[in-house]
Formats: sequence, C-alpha cells, structure tokens
Amino acid sequence: MKTVVVGAGPVGALAALYAAVRGQDVEIYELRPDIRDPSTAPLNTKSINLALSERGINSLRRTGLSDLADAVLADTVPMHGRMIHVTKLGEYVREAQQYDAHGRDLLAMDRTQLNRALIDHLEAMPNVKIYFKHKMIGVDFKKKSAWFENRSDKTDLLTQGPEFKLTFDLLIGADGAHSAVRNHLMKVVPMTYQQEYIDKLWCQFGVPASPNGDFRIPPNYLHIWPADESMFIAIPNTDKTFTSTLFMSKEGFEELEASGKVVEYFSKNFPAVVPDLITEDDLKKQFTNNEHLPLISIKCTPYHYGSAGVIVGDAAHAMVPFYGQGMNAGLEDVRVLFEFLDKYPDDRTRALNEYTKQRTPDAQTINDLALGNYREMASDVKKPLYLLRKWVEETLYVHLPSLGWATQYSRVTFSNMRYSEVYQASQRQARILNSVVGLALATVVGSAFLFAGNGGLQKAKMGILRGVCLAAQGAQRVIQG
Amino acid sequence: MKTVVVGAGPVGALAALYAAVRGQDVEIYELRPDIRDPSTAPLNTKSINLALSERGINSLRRTGLSDLADAVLADTVPMHGRMIHVTKLGEYVREAQQYDAHGRDLLAMDRTQLNRALIDHLEAMPNVKIYFKHKMIGVDFKKKSAWFENRSDKTDLLTQGPEFKLTFDLLIGADGAHSAVRNHLMKVVPMTYQQEYIDKLWCQFGVPASPNGDFRIPPNYLHIWPADESMFIAIPNTDKTFTSTLFMSKEGFEELEASGKVVEYFSKNFPAVVPDLITEDDLKKQFTNNEHLPLISIKCTPYHYGSAGVIVGDAAHAMVPFYGQGMNAGLEDVRVLFEFLDKYPDDRTRALNEYTKQRTPDAQTINDLALGNYREMASDVKKPLYLLRKWVEETLYVHLPSLGWATQYSRVTFSNMRYSEVYQASQRQARILNSVVGLALATVVGSAFLFAGNGGLQKAKMGILRGVCLAAQGAQRVIQG
Repeated sequence: MKTVVVGAGPVGALAALYAAVRGQDVEIYELRPDIRDPSTAPLNTKSINLALSERGINSLRRTGLSDLADAVLADTVPMHGRMIHVTKLGEYVREAQQYDAHGRDLLAMDRTQLNRALIDHLEAMPNVKIYFKHKMIGVDFKKKSAWFENRSDKTDLLTQGPEFKLTFDLLIGADGAHSAVRNHLMKVVPMTYQQEYIDKLWCQFGVPASPNGDFRIPPNYLHIWPADESMFIAIPNTDKTFTSTLFMSKEGFEELEASGKVVEYFSKNFPAVVPDLITEDDLKKQFTNNEHLPLISIKCTPYHYGSAGVIVGDAAHAMVPFYGQGMNAGLEDVRVLFEFLDKYPDDRTRALNEYTKQRTPDAQTINDLALGNYREMASDVKKPLYLLRKWVEETLYVHLPSLGWATQYSRVTFSNMRYSEVYQASQRQARILNSVVGLALATVVGSAFLFAGNGGLQKAKMGILRGVCLAAQGAQRVIQG
Repeated sequence: MKTVVVGAGPVGALAALYAAVRGQDVEIYELRPDIRDPSTAPLNTKSINLALSERGINSLRRTGLSDLADAVLADTVPMHGRMIHVTKLGEYVREAQQYDAHGRDLLAMDRTQLNRALIDHLEAMPNVKIYFKHKMIGVDFKKKSAWFENRSDKTDLLTQGPEFKLTFDLLIGADGAHSAVRNHLMKVVPMTYQQEYIDKLWCQFGVPASPNGDFRIPPNYLHIWPADESMFIAIPNTDKTFTSTLFMSKEGFEELEASGKVVEYFSKNFPAVVPDLITEDDLKKQFTNNEHLPLISIKCTPYHYGSAGVIVGDAAHAMVPFYGQGMNAGLEDVRVLFEFLDKYPDDRTRALNEYTKQRTPDAQTINDLALGNYREMASDVKKPLYLLRKWVEETLYVHLPSLGWATQYSRVTFSNMRYSEVYQASQRQARILNSVVGLALATVVGSAFLFAGNGGLQKAKMGILRGVCLAAQGAQRVIQG
C-alpha cells in the first residue's frame, strides 16, 4: 500500500505519520523548502503561533507515539483564559476571563516547532520518504498517478529529472487553502465549493521579551484588545516573546497607511500596547513592513474521489482564525480519516465516503462558528449582558455536572464531540438559557433592591444561582419531555 | 491597444468583435479545434441549441454590423410559447402557453451556426487573428503577459514553438464554466466564489424529421413534458429536426440504466414521446450512448483585475439552463462591458470596476431565477393556481399598459432591463398580485354561484377582470404612495 501525501505542514505530516505507523509506504511531497533548513526564513509560512487544544492533542496521541505527543506538549505555554484590555471610565483595566470553569487550558505553541517534531519523527522511519521543493503539477485520480516537478538541487532514483510521474494507492492532499490537489479533485468530482474573503485583513507584530528577559505582560493568557471594528491580540511564545496580530478592514489599513497615524490609532483603541508591548518606532516599522494579509473561508464537499484521493485540513475547510480551531480541526480530520480506514480495511471507497459524510457537516459547523466568533472577540466580550450570560452558563456547568451542561466553547475546545453535535447541543441549551437569563436579570433587579447597601452582594448572587438552577432544571425537563 | 480574448465561443467571439470594430488589435485563443472544420464532430461542444431572446439580439445589433445580426436572426425558428404535454383524466393533451401577451417570440437557434457567423466575420477583419487548438497555460495580470501552448500543427511568427509568451493591454476571459482565466484571476484578486452542481443531470436526444421531411410536432413551441422529478423538452431546429433533453436526478438515471426500463419510464411520464418523436430502439440507444452530464451553477465576484483582465459569460456566471438566459446573459455582458469601456476611455480600471459593480447583482439574480425556474417548468406549469395567477398577470399586462405592468418572464426575456431591477419590480408586483389573486379566487367562487348554469362564464371572467384591475390599481397606488 503506497500512500502519497501532498503537503508537509502539521496536518500533512500527521497524516503521513498515521499512514507510516500502519506500515504503509509513504512519500511526502512539499512545495516549500525544509523548514528545518537554517537558511529558511522563520516567517516563510504565514501562520506562526497557534492554540493547540483537545482535538489536536488527542489526534497527536492517537498516533500511538506518546514520546512525540509529550515532546510537543512540553514545548507550549498554557493559556488559562482571555485577558481583555479595555478602557473603562477613563481607566485602563485588564479583565481575565477563564476559558474553562474546570480549569483546562489552551496551549500556545509555535507552528514550526510542531512541524519540526513531526518531520523529525517521519524522517527516522524506514518506510517514509520526504521530498521538499517538489511541486505537484498534475493528478490522474482514475489512473492513480501524479506528476511532480523537482525544484530542489537533489535528485535520486525516484525523482530523476525535473518532471517525473509516480503512481499511488491513496493520495492525501494536505496542501492548504489554495490546494492543488483540491483543484484536480474538482475536475473529476462534482464538488460544491464556496470561498469567501472576509472583510478583515491581518498583520502580525513581533513583541520582544522585556529588557530583563521576561514576558512583558502576564504570559498565561490570550490577550485581546477589542475595538469593535478592529482587534489586537497577543499570544505567548516559550521564549518569553509574544506574537501579536492586528485584525482590521482593508479600508482601515489603507486609512492608517495614508494618514500615518498608526500610533495614535493604537493609543486610542488598544490601551497600553504602546509602549508596554512595542515602541512607537517599532510599531510604525512593523505596520509598514509586515504584510497585510487576507482571511479566506472555504467550504466544499465531497472531500474524496473513489478509493484514490482525499483532502484534509485547510485544503478541505480553510477557516478564519477566530475560534482557534483551524489546525485542531485539520489534525482531527486525520484521526477521523484513519478511523474509517481502519474500520473498513477492505473497502477504502466506503471509508473515504464515510469520512466525507461525517466530516462535511462538522467542518462546515466549525467554519461558521469561527466566522461568528469574530464578533464575540471584537465586541461582545466587553458587554455586561454577554458577561452575565457567560457567568450563568459557566455556573451551571460547574455546579450542575449532572445536567451534562457545558458551554459551546468548552465543548469545541476541550472535548472531541463532533462539531455538528456541539452546535446542536448548544442550540438546545441556548433555548433554555435565554429564558433563564431573562429570569436572572429580573432576579438581579429584585435582589439589588433587597440587599442594596447591605453588603449582601454574595447573598444576592447565591439567590440568583439557586433560582437559575431550579429554572434550568425545570426548563430542561420541559424541553426533554 | 491590444486585446486578447481567451475562448472563441459565441460570447468570446462577440467580445472580440466589439473590440475589433473599435479598431483594437485583437487576438483570440481557443482550446478547441475550429468548429467550421468539417472533421470536427458536430457535438464537440456540449450545448447545441439555444433560445435567443432580446438581450442576445440587442447585443448582436449593438456591434453596428446589421448584416451579421440579420443573418443570425434569419437562421432561427420562432417559438411563440411553451407547449405542455400532459395526461389529464387518462387523456393525452397538449396545452399551448404563449410566452408573451404582446406576441413576441423566443428564437430557437443552433449554437454552432451563431458561432460560425461570428467567427467568419472576425476572420475577414484585418485587425483580428484567431488561433485554434491553443491552450492558455498561465497569465501574469500584473505584468500583462500570458503563456499559451500551441497544440495545432500550424505555426507562424506569433506563435512559434509549442509554448510562447505574449503581452496584452486587456485580456478578456470567455473560456466557460471551467475558466482557466478565472482560476488565474483568483490568484491575484480576493474573489468570492461559489459553485454548486444541482441535483439534476441532462441527456440529449436527437429527434429526426418525419418520414415526409416535416417537423414531427408543431415547430413553433418549446415543448415540455413536466413530470415533477424529471422533465423532457424539445426545441426545434431549422432543418425540421428537434433537439430534446431529459433532465433527471443522478439516482433516476442510475435506476433506469440498471432496470433497462427507459421505454416504460417514458411511456408513463412523457406521453406520446414514444413513438411520435422517437422509436423505442432509438430511445434506448441514445439513452445509453449519449452522455449523462451534470449542471453547474457558478457565482463569483469581482470579475476583473485592475485594467488588465476581465471575465464574461459562463466564466463569470455559469447558470442552469431553465430560464434560457445563459447565452443571452453572456452576450449582454459584452454589451455592458464595452459600454463602460466607451464611457471611460481614459480609465479602464474604472470601467472594469463599474462593470463588476453593475454586473454582479444582475448575474447573481438571473442565476437564482434560473435555479428557481426548474420547479416552474417541471411542475408548476400543470397547476391550476399557477395558470390562474399567470392569466391574471398577463391580463393586466395586456389590458393595462398604463400601469407599466409586465411579467417577470417577459421583462427577463423581452427587455433589456437590468436583471436585478426586473427582480425588484417583480417582487413589488407580486405583493400586489398576491392580494389580487386572493380577491379573484373569492370572486370566482361568488361568480360561479351567480352565473352558474346561465352561460355566463364570459360575463364572470369580465367581472373578475374589472375587479382585478380596480384592485390592482388601488393596490399599486397604496404601494407607490
């Protein structure tokens, strides 16, 4: 069984690893140079740090290579929650919002580190060959053959000459949002396909360690400066630096470029970023020099052709980054794909078909949630009603485990429940919660009168909580009944 | 000014003609062989007869070459309306439904004839060069250069060697639903793009002339056999043959292939097709031999890059065939594009930008209407309420021209009003009409009592009409006020 993987990013490398531990002959072809090559600029890929969560971790562990998963996890910075940076009544305040009422963390990690670890592992396996600087120029899925162009200065028996042809049993396309494999798949499969560039561009900023070699702001958070029409975030790196990103409309970027008032914009909208994280000069320089890049959202289906080809990761469902699930979903694709391949060892067509059937609604759900989460991050996190709703929801989650209650965020981030089922469960809960929050609001008003000026805030909160729990239990009984 | 057109179908050829009559240096590159070449099979393109209507005719006339338009129009078969073939109370009946209350026709024509006429005209112009069997392999819109592969056995100074590069001022992509130009455009433009294969496949059948050399059924109609889940149509050709098409789901085709019961299916669902149009043997043979092809619907935007490139026709908005507007919309693209190029002779970027801005909502509207019209053709045309609504609508249209009333179908088919404005006008009218039809229904019931058994049907109809007109005038005054 010969498996060819196109793309040696984290998702492609993991797919190759799953195939390799099953004893298949694996060949990986990657257009870019080897990221481990010291001459390769560290920024040659466009996404450099990531939030690894349960789905990604689980998919790494399921390789069976626990050394690998442990090594990857050791090289991360835990993020307990969001830290929101806002100005309230003229004061700069930071508010921490825990991600998970049970205390589970997101793990900030360097995409390149993860990729390196996977490729090192692959390279040590006798049944795996990796070719960098190889461009796929064609696939014939019906004949299970593909053509590549060798753009490296290396040649070997397999890849002689500038162009060569190979055959495969299964070709896995993990070649990103602008996937060549998907383009060839579309020629033989009637594919429903949608791509959309959202209204926001992004620009990355490096935030150095402080002069005494420490993190400049608390490390164990995903920092957010929400400004409705734009947003600035910072994610920690193990070397005490942060990687920051500005999200803003194209028009916004153009206005700032024309006016030159970047520092003024930051001072007004992103309190204390200048000079706590970055100097005025550095901000201006990075704003000008670093690329302003678009964000694409892609949905398609099916993901496969017969028993010959399948796409995973961004090639199948590139999403906007606002739920931190892009890479996690890609790694999960690999786990799900190989579960089906293991389940139907004698019928790969059926396995790939089941993969498409299961993964299409899941990928489309997380794609939509990621689009929706921009609003939450850029705006809702500041609003009292959002915070009250969140508090009620998390209170139920912590205090009433018997209800099986969990927030959508926690199910997406800290479980392996199918995305489409997460969404259905959340919609069900939302119907209950909306009535509950209405009740809670009424109770707050009542309680405020009752306990006002009496040091009774804690009593009031407990009273709300009791009311809320009873109401929720009642509502759930009604809905389930 | 050098204009390169990719694709020499009717839309590409018309674009080349518009550029050529403006004195530009025009080069046309077409992947397929010359359709005029006798060795080229007549079925080498997938769509062979078409309904030409006002937008197409107008776009041909606006070339200024009245000989050309007249020659094209002379070679058509007028279709006054639909002829619906159904079984009612066990009887096979044919019902004619006029397309236009003012008596205007659709023109059935051979796509190849139109294409031939356009290419013959182009070839006679000194500033035009046409290259067949040339594949576009790349475009650099920023540098305004493109690469082609010469697959013909001819070479000349311009196209020496198998691969060559050229430069252009403007490149027009008219290379169809699977447009290579669009694919290259997507690399430099953040394009919103959607493609969808609908649930129906199509299969074409040739219907020969009768033994005495005449049409087998009345020629001046688009014949429809509606069967809800499938549909059979027939369009006349000038040589007394018909071209027929079966539309049915993939599962439907597969079932018929497996069971072999094509004749039985036709006898049950499409009365008198066998043997009036086609023999049992011929039906079986054509069903097996002729391809079962998918139907794709494509929307995208923008259609252009800077001043360098633009897409027209199916490349910009492939649509399903159920409104008979695919080619008409493509020809209209050319008229609109050149109107903007004429309007802004010194600012092509602006002209292309305006073209995208105007054409995006128009193309998306007709695309949606075409999707919606399948239901009307396959099912609604049989229903009494549909027929009553159509009768009321057309009565208003004929008897009250002062209202500026027209059906959506007539505006799409017999006017040059922007598709998006047609839709808005129709939505406005629908709001009025829905109340009017409700009123008319009530009046019908009332009148039936009043005139029953009294030979008063005509009186009843006139009564309804008077009521309807008054109600419509009143309703329109309310809505416009």
